[in-house]
Amino acid sequence: MQAQWALTTDLYQLTMAQGYWESDKASVEACFHMYFRNNPFDGGFAVACGIEQLVQALEEFSFAEDDLDYLSGLTGVDGRPLFSQEFLAYLRDFSFHLDIDSVPEGTLVFAHEPLVRVIGPMLECQMLETLLLNIVNFETLIATKAARMAMVAGAPIAEFGLRRAQGLGGIWASRAAYVGGCASTSNVLAGKLFDIPVSGTHAHSWVMSFDSELEAFRAYVALYPHNAILLIDTYEVFQGLENAIVVAHEMEERGEKLAAVRIDSGDLAWLSKKVRARLDEEGLDTVGIIASNDLDEYTIDSIRQQGAPITGWGVGTKLACAFDQPSLGGVYKLAATRSSNQECWQPRLKVSEQSIKLSYPGVLDIRRYYNDDGSFAGDMVFDIFEQLSAEEIMTDPLDSLRQKSLTGKPFETLLKPVMKSGQVVADCEQRDMNTARNRVLKQLSCLDETRKRLLYPHSYPVGLEHGLFERRHAMLASLRGLKR
Amino acid sequence: MQAQWALTTDLYQLTMAQGYWESDKASVEACFHMYFRNNPFDGGFAVACGIEQLVQALEEFSFAEDDLDYLSGLTGVDGRPLFSQEFLAYLRDFSFHLDIDSVPEGTLVFAHEPLVRVIGPMLECQMLETLLLNIVNFETLIATKAARMAMVAGAPIAEFGLRRAQGLGGIWASRAAYVGGCASTSNVLAGKLFDIPVSGTHAHSWVMSFDSELEAFRAYVALYPHNAILLIDTYEVFQGLENAIVVAHEMEERGEKLAAVRIDSGDLAWLSKKVRARLDEEGLDTVGIIASNDLDEYTIDSIRQQGAPITGWGVGTKLACAFDQPSLGGVYKLAATRSSNQECWQPRLKVSEQSIKLSYPGVLDIRRYYNDDGSFAGDMVFDIFEQLSAEEIMTDPLDSLRQKSLTGKPFETLLKPVMKSGQVVADCEQRDMNTARNRVLKQLSCLDETRKRLLYPHSYPVGLEHGLFERRHAMLASLRGLKR
Repeated sequence: MQAQWALTTDLYQLTMAQGYWESDKASVEACFHMYFRNNPFDGGFAVACGIEQLVQALEEFSFAEDDLDYLSGLTGVDGRPLFSQEFLAYLRDFSFHLDIDSVPEGTLVFAHEPLVRVIGPMLECQMLETLLLNIVNFETLIATKAARMAMVAGAPIAEFGLRRAQGLGGIWASRAAYVGGCASTSNVLAGKLFDIPVSGTHAHSWVMSFDSELEAFRAYVALYPHNAILLIDTYEVFQGLENAIVVAHEMEERGEKLAAVRIDSGDLAWLSKKVRARLDEEGLDTVGIIASNDLDEYTIDSIRQQGAPITGWGVGTKLACAFDQPSLGGVYKLAATRSSNQECWQPRLKVSEQSIKLSYPGVLDIRRYYNDDGSFAGDMVFDIFEQLSAEEIMTDPLDSLRQKSLTGKPFETLLKPVMKSGQVVADCEQRDMNTARNRVLKQLSCLDETRKRLLYPHSYPVGLEHGLFERRHAMLASLRGLKR
Repeated sequence: MQAQWALTTDLYQLTMAQGYWESDKASVEACFHMYFRNNPFDGGFAVACGIEQLVQALEEFSFAEDDLDYLSGLTGVDGRPLFSQEFLAYLRDFSFHLDIDSVPEGTLVFAHEPLVRVIGPMLECQMLETLLLNIVNFETLIATKAARMAMVAGAPIAEFGLRRAQGLGGIWASRAAYVGGCASTSNVLAGKLFDIPVSGTHAHSWVMSFDSELEAFRAYVALYPHNAILLIDTYEVFQGLENAIVVAHEMEERGEKLAAVRIDSGDLAWLSKKVRARLDEEGLDTVGIIASNDLDEYTIDSIRQQGAPITGWGVGTKLACAFDQPSLGGVYKLAATRSSNQECWQPRLKVSEQSIKLSYPGVLDIRRYYNDDGSFAGDMVFDIFEQLSAEEIMTDPLDSLRQKSLTGKPFETLLKPVMKSGQVVADCEQRDMNTARNRVLKQLSCLDETRKRLLYPHSYPVGLEHGLFERRHAMLASLRGLKR
């Protein structure tokens, strides 16, 4: 999929870029972080995703001649060109000189943590904002949704949401759903572009196009004797089931096996048990039961808790557009600046009347601490240029009296290089889809069960290293003119 | 934006296509309709959108060599190729021979009505399903959301949702939002591709990159003296306002005018009144007030009802991904078939235990009836091959005792040709974005106020022509084996 990355941005990024370019700000170095403020779906975690698409976009990023022609024709309300020819000439030769670090694709992440850190000329940092947010917000959202479903599904999930996805967003949705834990997609383009397993059954229209359901089933298994899943609810489930049984026995006589029947409507818990019993009665215990119909993690969980003998799930709408929360709300905030004549970074803080909207000042990374059994103990956000206190105390960003000491526990730092001085350096470990998919599974096994609960999960400890917390507090007090 | 339309589909469309192609079904003609079952957002209407993208996809639809290579490599669980070389050769030369009709872009539409009708070889109809649904579902959803916002906004809306949109879905979202009534977009690529007005202000990071807010404002208006909108809430709104006032007076001295200030947080109703009063006190009554911060039609309506003096709105997340209902749920159902040896169409019905999921059999169109004052009186769905009763009675598809007679009222039929025998014939009237945008405005003026209400709107009369209703009823009774 070839997109025009350089223009996949908000106009103000380009007008501000021109501003930085024309002023002495061009030489100012900046540090931005991408993070979100609340875990999606009121859940206990998120799955970072989209690093690979970000890397590809960075590699392909350039202003084409027709992009420049378009920008050159834009005018202000006074009718004068918005962009100068000199600035457009600069864009013609534009390339990134940024240092970008991110958590590896498929890493479990939590609110308040930097997923991506971008360092370099203010202008370049800004130029990347919209594209980075668009990619990482969306793929992280979908990978998280898929992981929540896969966690409770107990059987493979086939994603088939393309028809209800948000336009071409559906292409990345299928990829992110696979990273999050789906087993396959119906989306052929995603299959081709990302080498994801593709799967499918048949539609109701297949059955309706024949004079009888039995005839339709026979025709279908004749075509696909080794992959046949028969959709049995075009007219009535139990009648469909009897037709499928006839066909399954005919297949047995030919030495073939019906793979499964699929139910796409009605009470899936009740129906699946009835269908299972009837199939077993006929000695068709290897025939699986695939369930679909507007499923999400809650319905899947409920159906399983009722003991429904489902051997595979098909999910569409609720996954492909993350129906109950279709946007992650990740932000990209300036956290520090450094002029060419300065050696040290100057932390920057965005103030808000809502405490949760305060930004995080400094040049940050994450330490993930481990318990002795290998499970995650807590994540500490810290400034890489500050000396950390030996106590390794972290403080809840929203509650100064909530602290946790992590002294002596083993840890790793999570941000890894994606780009160095404008050259993509992200390795396979960082960006590969299958590595990422395995990472999700492995990391989920390191997260306590209570933190994976769908409903009111126990919140995982994430805090600011205490020195960082104190500095942020002091900056805020100073900006608000408070005595301390 | 170049996409790979032929593979933008579900795998089962291609496996079924191979089935139709190998069997005698290849020559069967089919009629499919695309419709939705509930108006989005619990609203009273929807705005049909996406016809232009559908047309473009139809024009560009073909299987490339690398698509065929990919398909050729797909195997079943038995390891044998899923697609035969003969079928792949057929796809290599594939082109459409369909007749497609649709409502013109920007038409107000309602649940149960066919937005698009596709007639032609079963195989080709099926090949188009996923792509058609993906495009028309999404753009219709967003255009509807935008129309709901524009209806209550009383001031221009700038759409700036790209960073929170669902990946590349954001490109079409900006277009659909413009069709629905937004005045501009921040999305530069959508501006370029669709010739939509682009607009923007500056970010908090612009202010934060300077040593003082006043310095940042001065630098910004020096750059864009004729378009300057200053974002005043980076640190504190009233302090930001005072800095903007200083700059506005300095501009006056140079014969320039500050366009507006923008507030992006806090209580927008309360703040905007305070800001207006202070600006007026300073004689700056031409300086507008732009409001943004997670706005949707409900918050915009509420803020206006409180008398807030907003002169422009910025909307992002809630519009670009239709936050409260991110998918339309439109379906594409087989409604009739005709074999090569048959003259008449055979209606087809998909049965379900849920009455609302019953499909509509026949080859259908919509008559929109008008009252004497030009307002919409009701929409009747009818079979174009059936003789209509002189009474022009229509029946609610979900309630047989709810009828309405439209005898003698003037009407027009809504479906217009998009493609004839595989050739795109949609004219400008049918597909042009600006024509569509005007159509939305005009048609909304023909819809009673009670039907445009955000909360519990009075439902607009849509029914099945009585003969069609009776036939569907009889088919259902017969399929269920009921006595009548």
